[in-house]
Amino acid sequence: MGSTFGSLFRISTWGESHGGGIGVVVDGCPPRLPLTEQHLQADLDRRRPGQSSITTQRSEADNAEILSGVFEGVTTGSPIAVLVRNSDAEPGAYEHLRDVYRPSHADYTYEARYGVRDWRGGGRSSARETIGRVAAGAVARQLLQRAAGIEVLAWVSQVHTIFSNVDSDSVTLAQVEADPTRCPDPDAAAAMTFAIDAARREGDSLGGIVTCVARNVPAGLGDPVFDRLEADLAKGMLSLPASKGFDIGSGFAAVTMTGLEHNDPFVPGESGPVTTSNRSGGVQGGISNGADLLFRVAFKPTATISSPQETVDTSNRPTTLEARGRHDPCVLPRAVPLVESMALLTLADHWLRHKAVDVLPD
Amino acid sequence: MGSTFGSLFRISTWGESHGGGIGVVVDGCPPRLPLTEQHLQADLDRRRPGQSSITTQRSEADNAEILSGVFEGVTTGSPIAVLVRNSDAEPGAYEHLRDVYRPSHADYTYEARYGVRDWRGGGRSSARETIGRVAAGAVARQLLQRAAGIEVLAWVSQVHTIFSNVDSDSVTLAQVEADPTRCPDPDAAAAMTFAIDAARREGDSLGGIVTCVARNVPAGLGDPVFDRLEADLAKGMLSLPASKGFDIGSGFAAVTMTGLEHNDPFVPGESGPVTTSNRSGGVQGGISNGADLLFRVAFKPTATISSPQETVDTSNRPTTLEARGRHDPCVLPRAVPLVESMALLTLADHWLRHKAVDVLPD
Amino acid sequence: MGSTFGSLFRISTWGESHGGGIGVVVDGCPPRLPLTEQHLQADLDRRRPGQSSITTQRSEADNAEILSGVFEGVTTGSPIAVLVRNSDAEPGAYEHLRDVYRPSHADYTYEARYGVRDWRGGGRSSARETIGRVAAGAVARQLLQRAAGIEVLAWVSQVHTIFSNVDSDSVTLAQVEADPTRCPDPDAAAAMTFAIDAARREGDSLGGIVTCVARNVPAGLGDPVFDRLEADLAKGMLSLPASKGFDIGSGFAAVTMTGLEHNDPFVPGESGPVTTSNRSGGVQGGISNGADLLFRVAFKPTATISSPQETVDTSNRPTTLEARGRHDPCVLPRAVPLVESMALLTLADHWLRHKAVDVLPD
Amino acid sequence: MGSTFGSLFRISTWGESHGGGIGVVVDGCPPRLPLTEQHLQADLDRRRPGQSSITTQRSEADNAEILSGVFEGVTTGSPIAVLVRNSDAEPGAYEHLRDVYRPSHADYTYEARYGVRDWRGGGRSSARETIGRVAAGAVARQLLQRAAGIEVLAWVSQVHTIFSNVDSDSVTLAQVEADPTRCPDPDAAAAMTFAIDAARREGDSLGGIVTCVARNVPAGLGDPVFDRLEADLAKGMLSLPASKGFDIGSGFAAVTMTGLEHNDPFVPGESGPVTTSNRSGGVQGGISNGADLLFRVAFKPTATISSPQETVDTSNRPTTLEARGRHDPCVLPRAVPLVESMALLTLADHWLRHKAVDVLPD
Repeated sequence: MGSTFGSLFRISTWGESHGGGIGVVVDGCPPRLPLTEQHLQADLDRRRPGQSSITTQRSEADNAEILSGVFEGVTTGSPIAVLVRNSDAEPGAYEHLRDVYRPSHADYTYEARYGVRDWRGGGRSSARETIGRVAAGAVARQLLQRAAGIEVLAWVSQVHTIFSNVDSDSVTLAQVEADPTRCPDPDAAAAMTFAIDAARREGDSLGGIVTCVARNVPAGLGDPVFDRLEADLAKGMLSLPASKGFDIGSGFAAVTMTGLEHNDPFVPGESGPVTTSNRSGGVQGGISNGADLLFRVAFKPTATISSPQETVDTSNRPTTLEARGRHDPCVLPRAVPLVESMALLTLADHWLRHKAVDVLPD
Repeated sequence: MGSTFGSLFRISTWGESHGGGIGVVVDGCPPRLPLTEQHLQADLDRRRPGQSSITTQRSEADNAEILSGVFEGVTTGSPIAVLVRNSDAEPGAYEHLRDVYRPSHADYTYEARYGVRDWRGGGRSSARETIGRVAAGAVARQLLQRAAGIEVLAWVSQVHTIFSNVDSDSVTLAQVEADPTRCPDPDAAAAMTFAIDAARREGDSLGGIVTCVARNVPAGLGDPVFDRLEADLAKGMLSLPASKGFDIGSGFAAVTMTGLEHNDPFVPGESGPVTTSNRSGGVQGGISNGADLLFRVAFKPTATISSPQETVDTSNRPTTLEARGRHDPCVLPRAVPLVESMALLTLADHWLRHKAVDVLPD
Repeated sequence: MGSTFGSLFRISTWGESHGGGIGVVVDGCPPRLPLTEQHLQADLDRRRPGQSSITTQRSEADNAEILSGVFEGVTTGSPIAVLVRNSDAEPGAYEHLRDVYRPSHADYTYEARYGVRDWRGGGRSSARETIGRVAAGAVARQLLQRAAGIEVLAWVSQVHTIFSNVDSDSVTLAQVEADPTRCPDPDAAAAMTFAIDAARREGDSLGGIVTCVARNVPAGLGDPVFDRLEADLAKGMLSLPASKGFDIGSGFAAVTMTGLEHNDPFVPGESGPVTTSNRSGGVQGGISNGADLLFRVAFKPTATISSPQETVDTSNRPTTLEARGRHDPCVLPRAVPLVESMALLTLADHWLRHKAVDVLPD
Repeated sequence: MGSTFGSLFRISTWGESHGGGIGVVVDGCPPRLPLTEQHLQADLDRRRPGQSSITTQRSEADNAEILSGVFEGVTTGSPIAVLVRNSDAEPGAYEHLRDVYRPSHADYTYEARYGVRDWRGGGRSSARETIGRVAAGAVARQLLQRAAGIEVLAWVSQVHTIFSNVDSDSVTLAQVEADPTRCPDPDAAAAMTFAIDAARREGDSLGGIVTCVARNVPAGLGDPVFDRLEADLAKGMLSLPASKGFDIGSGFAAVTMTGLEHNDPFVPGESGPVTTSNRSGGVQGGISNGADLLFRVAFKPTATISSPQETVDTSNRPTTLEARGRHDPCVLPRAVPLVESMALLTLADHWLRHKAVDVLPD
């Protein structure tokens, strides 16, 4: 039952790395929304492998087919099923993983939970699963843009020890997409590229941080006390492969601030109070306050590395693993559309939930 | 609908700071579990205000009454309803907040969402709501201890710039409870006490970090792909008042590590593979791997401070707020049982979900 | 987890016949709805025991206390908790049931499921649990009346072999409440009273049918394909104690009709098509069509009868049961507010769900 | 959000009559269950159109492809996605329905709810949607058979005024499948065939009743108070196209019985109490009691008839509809696998839920 996300804008993903394909069912998308496969493909192409020298060489077109829920160019209110076939499946390339647990991968834990394991390319734990999230996120993006003008944009703000300098108020999609690293600070992007290339040559890998902003979010989204907006964002982000942490607004930096430094003063705005700073990250008490949402997601260095590693096999005997197959030495550039997708899905759900609250006249 | 947490071990909290009381309904607790009000009170007393000079002086006994679901000393499988009356309610003390939005509080956002606001002591956004979580967490604690020997323990690991030195493998509840700060490093605890006292005297407040460990967690808990164990933990923690961030295992520190440094090597253990390090924090691919769960939660400095602050009133006019009422200058000591509660609730839910997976013979 | 009903207008009931009380938490009621305890009491008084000579003599005031979610006379959007204390509990009166399974009651099945049983007055399976449903239904009634003018009215249409003649288009609450049987056909009501009295004197009991109409339901409520409006109504009705069947519109009578006889012709109405007959019962394809909802619920004769019955004890030995305690010889009159409550809760949920669908401009 | 059924054994269907196909995602099926496409096809072939002269002549092979969740012949615990392509789609055949509302169909209500309508063959409201249910039901059947020996069998017990005489204790699948009517009483089957043929020739249609039994259901399935076993069965059955009523055990016949006639006496059985009659239909207090589940579902006469009918068009003007296209003059024979599917899905869900209750030692 863990493959469903959201309550009103609800998605269910399915599929493994080397099975019949990958897909998603979106249930709850409002009717009459213009939607074509091109909307999905635009985001899928950003997630696609083989985009540049710093990502995996696995080459898949990942063409999305909308199987249901769209008629004459608009959504009908019925579930939207999306299918992406697996085209570059080389199961043979993974035979050597049949009997071994890769360190810091999900091989052992899937076996512990299910007593069986699809060892081809990680099976369900493969990052190919995120195709479904990105396709569904593209539907959410179209809904939020059309209905509310909400925009979600993420970028790589840090790789290993390389920091970037990005203005979250003004950064644009074009700036993010200008470099394969998806870091919109050109100097940092160059250094990141160099570092990622070096890591790959050394059989090593790097982690980093994706920062995400959501603009034009109206005040009032979020459902206390458990379904706070930041709580659902945190769940979405920690459900992404390789993510290890989440913080919002001041985040972990709040720890070393005092209340006087941290509180966001209110001043009169055009249609209500606005804050002169945004250490809250756009949420107060679990509900959006009209300021930009601003949060970070930490990703660990890719677990798949080509250097030999000590591990155990499925008979609990020590062995040495030498990874083959294709992988990203740094997941960050391709994590950007994943972070956006989970943010879009969370916002679409809460935006619809808001519609079910604001139903009585003032 | 946001007041429910969990799917099989499902809790619903209700109540405001100054209404008829605070409560929780636990639906899905297995039958035949020994349970008394003393089990609940033990944890509620740790959350209770007025425990020491560094917490709020609001004095409430917060005595829990079990209204249903327990018969002859054991749970019956029916919903367990718990009620705590509000005894120290002074609504008059909050009259001055009727028409003003406190900075970095939920006053404005609740009004934006609901168009109405219970301004008495924060209403639903008051930390008194967490009484329901703690009471339910105590039920989960009893279940996990009895059925699986799982132990959850949290402590204050940092306040402002004061770090502590604590061994997460060996730290005990007694050590945590030995000091009102709930920091089990005595030197750090003394410095924290001094800093918190100073902040209060200055009309200011401090933030910090709570670290939490869960021991004896069997491998196999967690439900990919969205209900990963760390995703549900993240949601639980970010649903706590004043929390701004969550990370697990290496967390944000993973960012500056390489794959070779970060991967947890497997070696043969008694009944399967074990890791020689725990940068994974006890989860791989969203499922527990048998190692201790280890995570951190960042809390901001308390928003309520006694220094004057600029803000706006409900007519969108600038005003100056001088907080009265009683508050904690640092929420960290009382946040410890809250963090434990959300961890216990998450684990109880996933432990039951595991029972619905492991149903066919090998 | 079975104690929750609804998705957006979501209720959770708790409580046993002889525990600390009975209650309900309503999560998802829109804010700014005028609500007082009198709204709840009006419906609770209709459910209350001891209303007349044909219902149980157990006498309880069943006064409802709203503990949360209402401030200054209106709902706040936070969960509404309602508590009714058990005041007439005589646990001693049920001692003789500790070791015996009453035929066609839930004693044995609760023991089979939970391995433990609260034998005091049926415990959780007692019809007192429905207090929570009725209290929540009263909130839903207030919402539907205020926001949409929807009206729900049920009555006893049959007891044993006594049929009534009632015009579902015009029958009023006053007519239903004019007689303790809640049958608005005076001749039938007199015959029913006589039959129920006779059954009680003979140590026997009677079943019957409750018919329910919902008026002013807008077209468009219902969520294909599983959450059809009639499917959720059916679930609600079959969740009531002693119910054995549900049908809508033509219902079981449709079986012996042909398509030509059964189809509801459309004719132009003021603002769209209307049907000239209502064999659909107000739903087509799972969605309301603007006609009145019209459905029936079958109730079995009360399982508790004072005549001796053969049964077995908890040691699986044969024994004879002679019921004591107080009970209704016919549940129908008191089932009327229960049927209304489940219809109100279903409609409130679907009305809110509709708000999350109709969000884009035409 | 209405396209999901079940909580632990959770299915989501998608697809329209004339879109890219029909499918289902099953999330929560336990791992290590042997499963092939043949398991699904066996049930799909029973639902398939064109099986005999009394069903629609639309001819589709309806071959199911399992896209995920199965590896090396067993389920993996990951979502099982099933796809059936639409092969006989003739959208042109439905052009004449673009602007007209068919009486007692879902055309108008879908438009009322969604403001848009896929008019090709009923779109989402087409009975082709039930392919997903049947495929998922086949997975549930395999689970219940393997894990618990539970068997579910349905048959046509009545068509129009033709009753059958069937012993629910002994009837077999072979007997049901022996005749295209799926009525295992040969005399009644012959009369039904004659009546259905006559109705078709007259441009008319017939309704009827499907009866269903579930055998070897252990005592203890069902989750009071809302998720009673009969409540979830009722919901499942009323979610089927053309269903108008549901009753269990004595059902509507209970109305004219007295308590003394109706109660099921307990006698000692081998491992606990058993009942000597089964007017309860296998459930007491919402929980299975170990006796066979026995319930009925009423279906209306097919709404599509070839006789001319008065109706209105989408501009609210009167018009005459003459149905073309292919349809069943009586849905009953093909409704049998649908009823079984919803019963299997309900039982699989509750069987898994039971596993999450019975977790503590006695």
